Amino acid sequence: MFTVFPNARLKPSPFYKVCVDEGMNSASIYNSMIMPSSFGDREAEYWRLIEGVSQWDVSVQRQVQLKGPDAGRLAQILAARDLSNCAIGQGKYVAICNSRGTILNDPIVMKLADDLYWMSIADSDMWLWSEAIAMERGLNVEVSHPDVSPMALQGPKAEEVVAHVLGDWVRDLRYFWFRQTEIDGIPVVVQRSGYSKQGGFEIYLCDGSKGRQLWNIFKEAGQPWGIGPGSPQTPERTESGLLSVGSDTDAWTSPFEVRMGKFTDLDIPSDTIGLKALTKIAEEGPKRHQLGLVLEGDTPAPLGFAWEALLKDGEKVGDMTNCIWSPRLKANIGYALISTDVDVGEEVFVARDTGTVAARLVPLPFL
Amino acid sequence: MFTVFPNARLKPSPFYKVCVDEGMNSASIYNSMIMPSSFGDREAEYWRLIEGVSQWDVSVQRQVQLKGPDAGRLAQILAARDLSNCAIGQGKYVAICNSRGTILNDPIVMKLADDLYWMSIADSDMWLWSEAIAMERGLNVEVSHPDVSPMALQGPKAEEVVAHVLGDWVRDLRYFWFRQTEIDGIPVVVQRSGYSKQGGFEIYLCDGSKGRQLWNIFKEAGQPWGIGPGSPQTPERTESGLLSVGSDTDAWTSPFEVRMGKFTDLDIPSDTIGLKALTKIAEEGPKRHQLGLVLEGDTPAPLGFAWEALLKDGEKVGDMTNCIWSPRLKANIGYALISTDVDVGEEVFVARDTGTVAARLVPLPFL
Repeated sequence: MFTVFPNARLKPSPFYKVCVDEGMNSASIYNSMIMPSSFGDREAEYWRLIEGVSQWDVSVQRQVQLKGPDAGRLAQILAARDLSNCAIGQGKYVAICNSRGTILNDPIVMKLADDLYWMSIADSDMWLWSEAIAMERGLNVEVSHPDVSPMALQGPKAEEVVAHVLGDWVRDLRYFWFRQTEIDGIPVVVQRSGYSKQGGFEIYLCDGSKGRQLWNIFKEAGQPWGIGPGSPQTPERTESGLLSVGSDTDAWTSPFEVRMGKFTDLDIPSDTIGLKALTKIAEEGPKRHQLGLVLEGDTPAPLGFAWEALLKDGEKVGDMTNCIWSPRLKANIGYALISTDVDVGEEVFVARDTGTVAARLVPLPFL
Repeated sequence: MFTVFPNARLKPSPFYKVCVDEGMNSASIYNSMIMPSSFGDREAEYWRLIEGVSQWDVSVQRQVQLKGPDAGRLAQILAARDLSNCAIGQGKYVAICNSRGTILNDPIVMKLADDLYWMSIADSDMWLWSEAIAMERGLNVEVSHPDVSPMALQGPKAEEVVAHVLGDWVRDLRYFWFRQTEIDGIPVVVQRSGYSKQGGFEIYLCDGSKGRQLWNIFKEAGQPWGIGPGSPQTPERTESGLLSVGSDTDAWTSPFEVRMGKFTDLDIPSDTIGLKALTKIAEEGPKRHQLGLVLEGDTPAPLGFAWEALLKDGEKVGDMTNCIWSPRLKANIGYALISTDVDVGEEVFVARDTGTVAARLVPLPFL
């Protein structure tokens, strides 16, 4: 761990100041923005997500806006998933791949109008990729960052809070569907979504000057349900089997290796990037797959940066791509990106800095 | 300021562990990597750069490798500067622009062979941009990240240290020129370059397993000259007028607005990205220019994230894009990106959170 000081390369979110006032004391950098990662009590923040309702500044999920007559065409060229049946008001979770079929990003593509799409992206400069493709293919579409900043309400009680603010219609929203509306005159988009499996919504603030006001509306509304500040929880996302592209993937990871096969379509327009490579990988079968790891031992392991080799019979068979203490499983758990020759139920060894640790391969999600 | 904890999205550099041992306690995130920003005594680190020799982990200046028969062609398509006369062993500072002529990155392009180039990049995912262009134009070139990690020796005594390790031939290296060699069997590229104006070299480590070994060779060699750990110094880079793309630039900043006109060529192949827009901007003249600002007051101002408006006669005329205390000028200084209607010698007002501050426009560099 180390300290980060302000600089102009880091774009603060509209919720940054209110998060500082809420006691934010650690953060991640994601898409050149600051994402709060703790407000001082990690354990309470974890359990608030699991049992109650937690309020998150996830502006770092930056929107890449595609606007113009060719917006839909560009979205389909970028996404390795059929978008032809995507309705206005619907979002779809997609893999954006390069020509090798390597996953570059896994955004939610949101169709706001026939000529207006947003991609709510993971951590890489997808605007550069999108702009280059649009430019090279001569498409009539403008790629930009709109003034849109997601705030998440997550946890089993999130729906109560959001319904209290917005009305019971939110209870009928299907997963990844959204609606444009206003809250006290503040323009927002409300979507059933969020980087947890505990349920909830993302409120896309569409006026960057109203961050504190929007935050406080939900903070106040959530008091009866014990709302408090939080952030995406690495233990919970790992327990729940959520993917983190860039953490769990490398320069050769296809969607099929990381359980995105069910979101990957091959009967899509032939000019979709990566389609040829993905078709070949699907035919031949991926060489690696992503499984869960339960490590031996009952002491929380230190956090690490790098992938760690997985050994079987003394040979490297894959990598452990993350490792975190699970408060519910009371074990160190992580993901394996590992040869398909090795499968659930087998034991492997993790070559850690601190020594070799045995680990059992299990299905994902853990919980 | 806030604390950042390890996660697998942050790639540690080969020098990370030795920097932790050296006392690194703050860092920046740059190209999804960790760049040390202080070892606990910022004032000493500043003066070590100005008066002695400082050792920096600048692996975050990631290399984008272009390899294949079309490597040179891709480099020229990307760079708004004539590379036809770039020799093997030479580097050139270039602007990479989009089709609007907006600067996306300002790497050093290094020609290692006719079919092998590196781009030592600033903070944005230039590999995505480069790969998209190569793919769309059907070029025979592979875009990748090689195992190459720059370490810098900077300061007036850097040449003595590097000559002591490598021999007097380094004294004859011209600016941005480089040579491939070995140090105790460790493959490196040695270039006269670095993100300061105090002179020095960058040693590109070409074997990521040898970070500590290479660091210690220079650390030991530099003892007679008082070498110590450091990092790019925001006060020095500001005093020296160095550009930081992404800090000092926005979605509409052309190279002409930020003093890169002398590195921008318009008589280059017509398929260079942005050439048409840059030619138009050059003909019409840029609407903004980058000047220095000296703020009133003699107390170091707090660090900030965001651009701050510059006012003249109550009207917004531009932005202050950074602000830092200069130990040599004993003033808060910064950069203005401001209308060309306003020029050196005039006074403007900075709309700061803490109140309005008067500032004088001066030429860059300050020193």
